[in-house]
Amino acid sequence: MGFNKIVAVSMTELFVQQIENMILSGELAIGEQLPPARELSVKMGVSRTVISAGLVELEKLGFVEIRTRQGVFVCDYRRKGSLETLIAIMRYNGGAMRKNEVKSLLETRDAMECLCLRLVCEKNDVAELEKLSPILDSIRDARNADEAAERVFSFHHELAIMSGNVLLPLLYYSFKTQGEYLWSLYCKRSGVKKLYEIKLALFSALMNKDIDSAIEQTHQIMDVAKNDLGFYGA
Amino acid sequence: MGFNKIVAVSMTELFVQQIENMILSGELAIGEQLPPARELSVKMGVSRTVISAGLVELEKLGFVEIRTRQGVFVCDYRRKGSLETLIAIMRYNGGAMRKNEVKSLLETRDAMECLCLRLVCEKNDVAELEKLSPILDSIRDARNADEAAERVFSFHHELAIMSGNVLLPLLYYSFKTQGEYLWSLYCKRSGVKKLYEIKLALFSALMNKDIDSAIEQTHQIMDVAKNDLGFYGA
Repeated sequence: MGFNKIVAVSMTELFVQQIENMILSGELAIGEQLPPARELSVKMGVSRTVISAGLVELEKLGFVEIRTRQGVFVCDYRRKGSLETLIAIMRYNGGAMRKNEVKSLLETRDAMECLCLRLVCEKNDVAELEKLSPILDSIRDARNADEAAERVFSFHHELAIMSGNVLLPLLYYSFKTQGEYLWSLYCKRSGVKKLYEIKLALFSALMNKDIDSAIEQTHQIMDVAKNDLGFYGA
Repeated sequence: MGFNKIVAVSMTELFVQQIENMILSGELAIGEQLPPARELSVKMGVSRTVISAGLVELEKLGFVEIRTRQGVFVCDYRRKGSLETLIAIMRYNGGAMRKNEVKSLLETRDAMECLCLRLVCEKNDVAELEKLSPILDSIRDARNADEAAERVFSFHHELAIMSGNVLLPLLYYSFKTQGEYLWSLYCKRSGVKKLYEIKLALFSALMNKDIDSAIEQTHQIMDVAKNDLGFYGA
């Protein structure tokens, strides 16, 4: 994989990550009060300045609430969180997600993809759609599951761009790691050939402007994945 | 509104914001090469260190590509961007969005809300849904458009939480500013009473497990908003 960039991580970032992980893992419960800053400072071996800056960052992320003169409390991040929280959740465990998160992702992905396919059908003629052919060929020629997953991701990302909706490609790209992981699992079980065939079938449905079939195919794949949730661990 | 927090902004952040705005406004075109760092440094009156750090940040956000020994080029952020880019776009102009962005948001919101309503119907009984009543009452009693918009936002955010999907409330919350702005426009034109009535109708449909009607109502509201795109400026 070559030499990866070395990125310096500040003490504040390390502090934020550790508290984040404790909240996401449930070690710190929602509503729980954090120990006072001086105690955290001793226990975690970082300065009070680092802790103050870290807590402000954690509040911005929707993980804690700082109540003046009362202390710092763990928030229900699923209620108070925003896109930044989502990014933090995905970063947790290097992108691995829990069962409920994978299920939520598949549900959301299904809804987004069906919107995407509808818009693609409305806005693109056969000539435009033909541009997807080389990506399809590259899926067929993939030498392993990871390569196939990467190319399937590109195929759907290209569709998101063709939809003309400016949010869809950005949202889709944000889940690149998770998406490629799920496609690669699918591929390991069913093979590159099968993965190519289902994308070819989707492509044909789009070429025929058969939006009902395209959507039905998407639902089916998400249902298969949802039934397989047991495979994704936790 | 009281005294707002004063937040120190670093030179790097200011540099990033300025370049971001130039790209989002189209002043810097996709594919265009930025001037060399020493020229930027003179023109913008910041150090080379600030520029290096800023360019790395801009690359992370999907706005530029740094090609070794060739220079820095403006990326197609709609293609290379992620959730972080989306946040940057929304921050641009203090949350105001361009017509195509509002349209994209409405399309995406429609798809998400329909998923949300389906999940809410599946997972909640009448007793659970009754918890929405006080929020509905508070919409009815709102004294102005902004207050009504804020409460309508809470109503939908609560629905997103009740869906059991962990991504939906986070995504919805991320668009709080934009969502409240659009609801408040709706309210200014149609009045608090009308806004209350449509939310009551949606609530009734959910209580009757009439998912088709709930979805139809959502589509209708989004269609009205899409037809009104001219009102949102740019």
